[in-house]
Amino acid sequence: MKSFIPVTPESDFSLMNIPFGLFRAGDYYAVCTRVGDTVIDLSICHNIDVFNGIELPSGIFNEKTLNPFISLGKAVTSAVRSRLQEALSVGGYLDADIFKSSALMIPAAEAEMVLPLNIGDYTDFYSSREHATNVGKMFRDPANALLPNWLHLPVGYHGRASSITVSGTPVVRPSGQTMPEGATTPHFGKTKQLDFELEMAFVIGKENPLGRPIPIEEAEDYIFGLMLFNDWSARDIQKWEYVPLGPFLAKNFASTVSPWIVTLEALEPFRVKGPEQKPEVLPYLNIDGKRNYDIHLSVEILSNSGSKKTVCRSNFRYMYWNMCQQLAHHTVNGCNVRIGDLMASGTISGETEDSFGSMLELCWKGTKPIQMPDGTQRTFIEDGDTVIMRGWNDTGYGRIGFGECSANVLP
Amino acid sequence: MKSFIPVTPESDFSLMNIPFGLFRAGDYYAVCTRVGDTVIDLSICHNIDVFNGIELPSGIFNEKTLNPFISLGKAVTSAVRSRLQEALSVGGYLDADIFKSSALMIPAAEAEMVLPLNIGDYTDFYSSREHATNVGKMFRDPANALLPNWLHLPVGYHGRASSITVSGTPVVRPSGQTMPEGATTPHFGKTKQLDFELEMAFVIGKENPLGRPIPIEEAEDYIFGLMLFNDWSARDIQKWEYVPLGPFLAKNFASTVSPWIVTLEALEPFRVKGPEQKPEVLPYLNIDGKRNYDIHLSVEILSNSGSKKTVCRSNFRYMYWNMCQQLAHHTVNGCNVRIGDLMASGTISGETEDSFGSMLELCWKGTKPIQMPDGTQRTFIEDGDTVIMRGWNDTGYGRIGFGECSANVLP
Repeated sequence: MKSFIPVTPESDFSLMNIPFGLFRAGDYYAVCTRVGDTVIDLSICHNIDVFNGIELPSGIFNEKTLNPFISLGKAVTSAVRSRLQEALSVGGYLDADIFKSSALMIPAAEAEMVLPLNIGDYTDFYSSREHATNVGKMFRDPANALLPNWLHLPVGYHGRASSITVSGTPVVRPSGQTMPEGATTPHFGKTKQLDFELEMAFVIGKENPLGRPIPIEEAEDYIFGLMLFNDWSARDIQKWEYVPLGPFLAKNFASTVSPWIVTLEALEPFRVKGPEQKPEVLPYLNIDGKRNYDIHLSVEILSNSGSKKTVCRSNFRYMYWNMCQQLAHHTVNGCNVRIGDLMASGTISGETEDSFGSMLELCWKGTKPIQMPDGTQRTFIEDGDTVIMRGWNDTGYGRIGFGECSANVLP
Repeated sequence: MKSFIPVTPESDFSLMNIPFGLFRAGDYYAVCTRVGDTVIDLSICHNIDVFNGIELPSGIFNEKTLNPFISLGKAVTSAVRSRLQEALSVGGYLDADIFKSSALMIPAAEAEMVLPLNIGDYTDFYSSREHATNVGKMFRDPANALLPNWLHLPVGYHGRASSITVSGTPVVRPSGQTMPEGATTPHFGKTKQLDFELEMAFVIGKENPLGRPIPIEEAEDYIFGLMLFNDWSARDIQKWEYVPLGPFLAKNFASTVSPWIVTLEALEPFRVKGPEQKPEVLPYLNIDGKRNYDIHLSVEILSNSGSKKTVCRSNFRYMYWNMCQQLAHHTVNGCNVRIGDLMASGTISGETEDSFGSMLELCWKGTKPIQMPDGTQRTFIEDGDTVIMRGWNDTGYGRIGFGECSANVLP
């Protein structure tokens, strides 16, 4: 399957992908997809009969979030995606000069992508064994790095939905309380340890009523798709505030997501088995089959001066706890999830040192600085730095990826 | 000021109160207030010119949440409240037979009150010194019950917004993982330690942009009003899951709020000074004046068999950290708050044993059972029990209170 729209081999947006996003032009909002460097307005597609035969409420592609579209259910959203693949193929319905010269197709550089979701609740898990082990070694007991519950349940906590912003939105370095090493009274000021966390987040596409757990076998039905997620963290603030109730101001000043939601269907070719789980998990968390996804992940730091370095190469397949387990656990007490809720993976670290998903781990608490090409060093993120996350894999017929999840740090 | 509507001295809803809520009758939703045992439909008030001269968007009282009304700002919402007080006074605009015989006034017993807010984010603080000390004594070191950060900042964490329900909604006893005393593998089943937490929550009435902290002197401008809040907790699940990232499934299965939001203006007569804070707080948390509120609080358990006991009498004035400090702290890193966000106080315990705000503390981890009038005992909450919270004080011209925050526990 090949599109009439040019797609380079390095593009995340082959015809195999067809992710969903939202763009605006002034007061105009439209659900869109992307092929190569072209953004396609689904509202106009709808008006020119691309979706004939698929039952779609009027105005569904001009809402200010994707939530109403997602809530139509997978039968509909999958049909829309398949139809787009046909229509955008060589010789397909949209392969006609009249459409190519219309407002239907917008150069990606000119499309202002916005946060595509109304996120009711955002949950962050802590599901990479390597990450949890690294943190445990640094801050607790190296010989017993994992806490006793870690291998029995996917540890998670609630985060802040209001401060989740779309790629391209700057992040202001947060102020807060810290207790510097050796001090006896706390200090107030800008964080000195601003960090990223490389994560993936899944988007809820189906709701369960309060009081009714989602059985693990059905969990995938409730997942619409995935986004890249940067869980910005201020380590010095976190260290002082987090006992006994968890991270709060160290995290809730900002999180950054990719503008594109890649559907679970698109990621089918990348299914792989996850790591073996020992000890055996409780029955409500037990699921066979390929439940992890082979998605290459990278983090690049781009300095003010234009100096660039890829500081991390990881993979989503490393996750110890998979998304089905996370969702089954989250709802086993009857907690309800709603369309548009986000559930992030936690920092995705691999076994090798260059695959660690945060500066905290990469520079091992500041003891191993990273050399930038311009001769400067980093142990955490500096003002003016841009942190760029990417995620992709190749189907053999074209690449599927998330585009950039990027944010510049302001003082 | 006296209303033509009968108000008993024990009623929370004197003319001094005029809280805001939302009721439904089928597909019809309306913002409302209450005097005595009468609920007043503000949409009809609007139609019959009660609010003449106050600028109000059409349909504002028939939205499905109070958020659009609250977002008009305090100048408007206070004017609406004052106008209602006038109109509902003896000889006031509504003291006419034609109005009393219309749909404007509904017996409280017939009004189906619904959750009045779209809650974007919900935060729970941990701001009662007595509660934090009790928990520290039970689970950590009795000699150093408070953790080192506690006296320097209002500890808080994010909770789940989706499972907040209005008074009257039953709570299903949650299942989850626990690690029983002496066990080596975790156990799955219904919680054996279901508990309430007596809290107050404030409702955000004004937004700050992401990146701009709310200075403590301005914090009250951002608070619309207060509700009673029951932060249901499963202690055995909490104990096993909460390290290192805080409570999750132990809390997010349900929280219960009162249907009525009492405005900050209504609570003016109850302002008092809070406890002395030592050590001195950092400048961003420093605020003088009466920032606590003298609100009597109680918790009653009503068993299946009709046996009733008031198990706790506390007071909102006991809070160590006040709401201004909580909000200034929450946003000092630039975190944004949105209309309708809820910020709960944490369990409100006093110094005496009968003022502890949870069964965990009242029964001291199950070691001091509570005797019910029917001869049964409680160390935690049993199936069939209804937990009823109340909050009120008297102005001298009539009582101001929240009505009941009540929920029945289903197996």
